Amino acid sequence: MAPVQILKFPISSPGDTSPLQKIQEAGYDPSQILAVVGKTEGNGCVNDFSRTLASAVWEPLIPADAVTVFSGGTEGVLSPHVTFFLRETGDATTGLSASVGHTRTLAPHEVGTEEQTRQVATTVAQLIRQMDVTPEQVHLVLVKCPLLTSDKLQAIRAQGRVPITSDTYESMARSRYASAIGIAAALGEVPEGGVPAIMRPGQGEHHWSAKASCSSGAELDDCHILVLASSSPTSSSSPPREQRLHAVSRPMADAMDAASILHLLDQVRKDDGEVLQVFAKAEADPSGRVRGFRHTMNTDSDIHSTRHARAAVGGLIAGLVSDAQIYVSGGGEGQGPSGGGSLCLVYRTPG
Amino acid sequence: MAPVQILKFPISSPGDTSPLQKIQEAGYDPSQILAVVGKTEGNGCVNDFSRTLASAVWEPLIPADAVTVFSGGTEGVLSPHVTFFLRETGDATTGLSASVGHTRTLAPHEVGTEEQTRQVATTVAQLIRQMDVTPEQVHLVLVKCPLLTSDKLQAIRAQGRVPITSDTYESMARSRYASAIGIAAALGEVPEGGVPAIMRPGQGEHHWSAKASCSSGAELDDCHILVLASSSPTSSSSPPREQRLHAVSRPMADAMDAASILHLLDQVRKDDGEVLQVFAKAEADPSGRVRGFRHTMNTDSDIHSTRHARAAVGGLIAGLVSDAQIYVSGGGEGQGPSGGGSLCLVYRTPG
Amino acid sequence: MAPVQILKFPISSPGDTSPLQKIQEAGYDPSQILAVVGKTEGNGCVNDFSRTLASAVWEPLIPADAVTVFSGGTEGVLSPHVTFFLRETGDATTGLSASVGHTRTLAPHEVGTEEQTRQVATTVAQLIRQMDVTPEQVHLVLVKCPLLTSDKLQAIRAQGRVPITSDTYESMARSRYASAIGIAAALGEVPEGGVPAIMRPGQGEHHWSAKASCSSGAELDDCHILVLASSSPTSSSSPPREQRLHAVSRPMADAMDAASILHLLDQVRKDDGEVLQVFAKAEADPSGRVRGFRHTMNTDSDIHSTRHARAAVGGLIAGLVSDAQIYVSGGGEGQGPSGGGSLCLVYRTPG
Amino acid sequence: MAPVQILKFPISSPGDTSPLQKIQEAGYDPSQILAVVGKTEGNGCVNDFSRTLASAVWEPLIPADAVTVFSGGTEGVLSPHVTFFLRETGDATTGLSASVGHTRTLAPHEVGTEEQTRQVATTVAQLIRQMDVTPEQVHLVLVKCPLLTSDKLQAIRAQGRVPITSDTYESMARSRYASAIGIAAALGEVPEGGVPAIMRPGQGEHHWSAKASCSSGAELDDCHILVLASSSPTSSSSPPREQRLHAVSRPMADAMDAASILHLLDQVRKDDGEVLQVFAKAEADPSGRVRGFRHTMNTDSDIHSTRHARAAVGGLIAGLVSDAQIYVSGGGEGQGPSGGGSLCLVYRTPG
Repeated sequence: MAPVQILKFPISSPGDTSPLQKIQEAGYDPSQILAVVGKTEGNGCVNDFSRTLASAVWEPLIPADAVTVFSGGTEGVLSPHVTFFLRETGDATTGLSASVGHTRTLAPHEVGTEEQTRQVATTVAQLIRQMDVTPEQVHLVLVKCPLLTSDKLQAIRAQGRVPITSDTYESMARSRYASAIGIAAALGEVPEGGVPAIMRPGQGEHHWSAKASCSSGAELDDCHILVLASSSPTSSSSPPREQRLHAVSRPMADAMDAASILHLLDQVRKDDGEVLQVFAKAEADPSGRVRGFRHTMNTDSDIHSTRHARAAVGGLIAGLVSDAQIYVSGGGEGQGPSGGGSLCLVYRTPG
Repeated sequence: MAPVQILKFPISSPGDTSPLQKIQEAGYDPSQILAVVGKTEGNGCVNDFSRTLASAVWEPLIPADAVTVFSGGTEGVLSPHVTFFLRETGDATTGLSASVGHTRTLAPHEVGTEEQTRQVATTVAQLIRQMDVTPEQVHLVLVKCPLLTSDKLQAIRAQGRVPITSDTYESMARSRYASAIGIAAALGEVPEGGVPAIMRPGQGEHHWSAKASCSSGAELDDCHILVLASSSPTSSSSPPREQRLHAVSRPMADAMDAASILHLLDQVRKDDGEVLQVFAKAEADPSGRVRGFRHTMNTDSDIHSTRHARAAVGGLIAGLVSDAQIYVSGGGEGQGPSGGGSLCLVYRTPG
Repeated sequence: MAPVQILKFPISSPGDTSPLQKIQEAGYDPSQILAVVGKTEGNGCVNDFSRTLASAVWEPLIPADAVTVFSGGTEGVLSPHVTFFLRETGDATTGLSASVGHTRTLAPHEVGTEEQTRQVATTVAQLIRQMDVTPEQVHLVLVKCPLLTSDKLQAIRAQGRVPITSDTYESMARSRYASAIGIAAALGEVPEGGVPAIMRPGQGEHHWSAKASCSSGAELDDCHILVLASSSPTSSSSPPREQRLHAVSRPMADAMDAASILHLLDQVRKDDGEVLQVFAKAEADPSGRVRGFRHTMNTDSDIHSTRHARAAVGGLIAGLVSDAQIYVSGGGEGQGPSGGGSLCLVYRTPG
Repeated sequence: MAPVQILKFPISSPGDTSPLQKIQEAGYDPSQILAVVGKTEGNGCVNDFSRTLASAVWEPLIPADAVTVFSGGTEGVLSPHVTFFLRETGDATTGLSASVGHTRTLAPHEVGTEEQTRQVATTVAQLIRQMDVTPEQVHLVLVKCPLLTSDKLQAIRAQGRVPITSDTYESMARSRYASAIGIAAALGEVPEGGVPAIMRPGQGEHHWSAKASCSSGAELDDCHILVLASSSPTSSSSPPREQRLHAVSRPMADAMDAASILHLLDQVRKDDGEVLQVFAKAEADPSGRVRGFRHTMNTDSDIHSTRHARAAVGGLIAGLVSDAQIYVSGGGEGQGPSGGGSLCLVYRTPG
C-alpha cells in the first residue's frame, strides 16, 4: 500500500504545467506522481477541449502508470487547479493511501453499458486488493470515463447496433452511471450479482455509491481510476498521532445540504485540522425540485444542468471552506443519492 | 409611514399569477399591494423576456401606484417566486415599513448616466422623507432600471449622440451603477455634491451603497424603486416585543463571504426568529480573482458573469438559510464592495 | 374554403402588437385573422418565454377560433416578425386557402406519443376535408405542439407512468415528430395503418411529411394547426391569371441545399412573382455529417443544435431571397428528409 | 517570392494532426509548410481552448518560421478542418504566392492599441516587399492576434495603466480592429499617416481593409501574419494557361450579401475552375439591422454575436459553394464594410 501526499496548485490555463516545478520545489520528483487530478475551465460537457488540452500537456510529463483525471467546469467561484497524488518514498506513512489504474479501452458501443460497469468494478476491486484496505477505509473512487461523440455514434450505427442514446450530452450521464455502479459493486454497496438488474433500461437510478465521483470526457477511450483510502480502519475516534493526512466522506443529500459539509468540517475542527481538498459531486435533482423548491436547471436550454449544479454546490462548499480550488464535478448519477452527491474531505493535522 | 407585511409564493412560470389568490386567502386585498418583487427564470440579461412576461401579466392586477421589480435568473438551486410587499391596514404595526415610487421616463441617452443617478437620488430621498425614517433605518433600496437595446442605441446615434456603451449587456451594468450611486447619494453614503465626480468616465467603481440592489431590464423605461426600512431606530439590542418583522443588512465582502451571512443568521437566531426573505446582490469580482483565487466568470464567453455569480452566491445563501426562494440578483456595481454585494435579511419573530 | 391573404410585419419585441394596427391600415379587420404565425427572439427551446409572451399578448386580440403559432429563435440574420393569415371576405379569390384548428388538450403522458400523432392526424384530415382540397394542393401544415417541462414530467411520474424521455429539450423533438407523423398520415405520406409501427420506440425516423412544419413550446397544452393549400390543383403550368397568391413546396435534402431553394425561386421568377414568405424547417443532421462533412452541432454543449440549424439555414435562405423576416424553424424530425427539412414559398404575382 | 500550394483536410478534433500524413501522401514534406490555418470547434471567443489545443499540437510539427492561425467556431454547418499553405519547391509556379511572419510580442497594455496597428503594418509591409507584389495583387492578409484575459487585465492595472476595455470579449474586437487597420495601412487603404487619427477612441469604425481577416485568441502573445497574393498582376482577363491557382476577393456588403459570393463564383465558373477554399469574415451589423431588418445578434445574451454571424454567413457560403470546410471567421471590425466582411476565394483551374 502506497502512502500518498496530496499537493494542490493553481493553473493559469488548462495548458499550464508550471505546477510540475512546484512539486519539485516541495521536494518531490515527477516519478512519484500517481495521479494529476484537475479542474479545468471548459464547459465540462461534450465539447470541453480544456480537458483534452490538459491531458495532452500533462500525460507526457507523468509516469506511464500514473493517471490523469481532468474534470471540466469551474463555474461560479470555482478556481482552476491541479491536485497531485504523490507516492511517498521510504517508510513514511501519511495516513492516506491511493492506487491508480485503468480499464481496457471500451468500444463505442460499450460506453455506458453493463460492460463498462463490469470493467470498472473489476479494476476497482483489484486496486482495493492491492492496497489491502477494507471497503470502509475507502473514501473516494475517482473515475474518468469516455462519452459518445458524433463519430462514435456513427461507428456504433455502422455496426448495425443501436446506441444507448443518440444525445452526446446524455451519453456523459450514462457513462458516469455505469462507472458509479461499477464502483458500488466493487465496494459492496449494491447486492452481489445485482449489476445486470440495476443496469437494465428503465430501472431508474435508485442505486448508488457513497464514494464514487465519476466524470466523462471525449479525451479518453478507457477509464482512469483512482482509489483513495485511510491507512487505518475507520473509526469515530481521533486519529493516531503519527497520522497527518485524513479522509472523511459523507454524501450530500441534495444540492443545498450545507449540514453534511458542516458535519465533516466539525470533524476537521475537532482534530485541529486543515482542509487540503474537497471532492464533491453535484447534480440538478432530476425531479425538478430541490428540497421541495422548483429549480430550473433541467429546463434551462441555454446552460446544461451540470454547469448549474457545479456553480451552486461549488459556491456553497467554497464559501464554507473558504477555498475555491476545490474539486466539484457535475452529474451525480449513482454517485450519492439522487439530487445529491458524494462528498469527501481530505485534511491535515499537526504532526 | 406604511407598515408592511411580506408574503412569498412560488410561481410555476413567469406568467403565473396564481399567488394573487394566495394573498387573498391570507386575508389581503390586491389593493394593498405595494410591490411585487420576483425572481423569474430567464437569463437575467438583455433578452430576458421572462421579466417582460411577468411585468405584462402582473401590472394590470396591481394598484396604479404599486411597482413591479422582476429580476431574471434563477441559476443553480434558486427557485422562481414572487414576494409581495403589502400595506397593513388600520393601525397595525409590523416593525417594517416600505414605500415605492418611480422616476420619470429616461431617454435612451440618459440610461446609465449622471442624469439617471440624479433621478434615482431624488426619488429615493423623497420616499425616505415620506416614510419619516433615518438613512440608518433603511436596509434595502430595490431599483429596477432600463438598459440599452439595439433600437435604443440606434435612437441615440440618430440624435448624433455617442452611447455610453455600444454593448447591450454592458449597458445593464452602467444602468445598475448609475442607480446605485443615486441610492448612495440619497442615503448619504457618498459625499454631498460628489456625484458628478463619481460618475465621470474612468473613475472606477470605488463608491457604493450598502443598501442598494439594482437590476436592469428591457421591460421598462423609467426606474421602479422600493425602499424598505425598520420602523424603529437601528440598535443592537433586541427589538421591542410588539415588533414582528425585522430587517437586517450587511454587505458581503465577496462572493464567498459565508461569514456575513452567518453573522446575520446569528442575529435571527438570537431573536428566535424565522427568515422570511433574503435580498442579495452577487457579482464576479472584476479583478478576476475572488479571495485570491483566479475565477473564470469574466473569461467565460458562453455564460455571462452575472449568471455565474447568481448561481454561486445563490447556492451559498440557499444552503445556509435552507430556502431556495430567495432574491439573489446579479451585477453588484456600486451595490456593496467590489466583488461582493449588498445583503438584507427580513425575518419574523414570535408575536 | 376560405381564400386567404398573407401580410407580414416586423415586431420590435415579442410583446409588440403594433402590427394589429398595420393590418387595419391595410384594410383588414382583426375579426378576419385566421392565424398569427411569428418568429420571436427567444432560444426556441424549453425555456423560451418570448413565445409565451407573444401568445399572452396576441391571444386576447384575435378571434376565438383563430390560432397562434410562435416559433422561437431568430439566430443569425433572422428577424423577428409576425405573419397574418387573413380571411378574405366576399367572393374574392386569392389563389391560397387556409384553415386552422386545434386538437384537444394532451395529457402530459401523451406528449410525443402515438396518441398525439392520432389527434394531429384527425384534426389535419378534418381541416383538409373542410377546405375541400386534395393532399397535393396542400403545401404547408404548421403545428405548434406541447413539450414536457419538469412539472409535467413530475406529473407523469406521480401517475406511475414512465415519460417518453426525461430530458425536457429532447421532449421537444419527440413532440415535433409525433405531430409530423400525424400530418404525414393525414396527407397519405405514410401507409394507412402504419402509424403504430412508425411510432414504436427504436424505429428511427425514416418516415416524414414533405409539408410538415412542427414546433414545440411550453406555452400550450394542445396542438395549434394551420393548413395552407393552393386553390387550384397543383400543376407545373403557370397559374391562371386571376390567381395572385401561390404556394410552392419542395423539401430541402440537407441544411446546405441551396439547389432546392433556387429551384423554387426559379418558379417564382418564371411567374414574374414576388416572394411573400418562406416557411422552412432546419435541423442538424443526426448522423453528425452534412453532405459528408463533419458538423459539430450535435456535440456543442453550449448551443443546442436547433439554434445552430436555424442560424445556418436562415442565413442561406435569407441571403437567397434577400429577406430576413422568414419563418425558419428548428428541429426537422419527420418534417422532410433526415438532416433536411420541409420548405414552402408563398409568392404573389401581378394581378 | 514563394509559389504556394494549398491543401485542405478535415480534422476529427482540434488535437487531430493526422493531416500531416495526408500532405506527405500528397508528396509534400512538413518542411514545406508555411502555415497551418484551421477552423476548430470551440466557441471562437475568449475561453476557446480548442484553438490553444490545436496550436499546442501543431507548433512542434511545423518549421520554426511557419505560422499557425486557428480560428475557433464552426457554428451551423461549418466543418472543422485545416488548410496548409505549402512552399512549392524547384521552379514550379502555381499562380499564388504567400509569405508569413509575426510581430514582436505585444505587452498586455498594447493589445488593441495603435502600437499593435503599427507592428502589424510594419510586418505586413515587409512581407509584401519580400514577395515583390503590388498591393493590388494581395487578396488576403490573415492575422491571428492576442486578446486580454483577466490575468492580462490585472497586469495592466498593476502597472497603473487603464486597459482599453475591461471586457475580455470586447478586447477581441479591439485587437482585430487594431490588426485590420495595420493591414489597411500597409496596403494603402487608409491615408498615409492617418493611423493615429483612426485609432483615437470614439472615432468609430469607418475605416477598413478589403483584404484583412483578423482573429483574436488567448493562445498567443504576438501576431501571426500570412499574406496571400496572385503571382500575376490583377486583371479582369482570364489567367495565363500555366497558372493553376487563383485568388479573387471582394468584400461582402453585409451578412446577407449572396450577390458578392455569386459574383466571385461566376468568375470561377468562367475560368472553368474549382473552388479550393473560401476565406470570409462575418459580423453582426453593429447598427442592429441587416439590410433594414432588425437582427437580434447584439441583444442575445446567451450566444455572442460572433457565433451568430459565423453560423449565418457560414450557412450562406457553404450552401453556395457546396463545401462546409471553409474558413469563416467572426468579428469583422475594419475587415470590410461595417456589418459585412472581407471575402477571398482561392480556386484551381485545369492545367
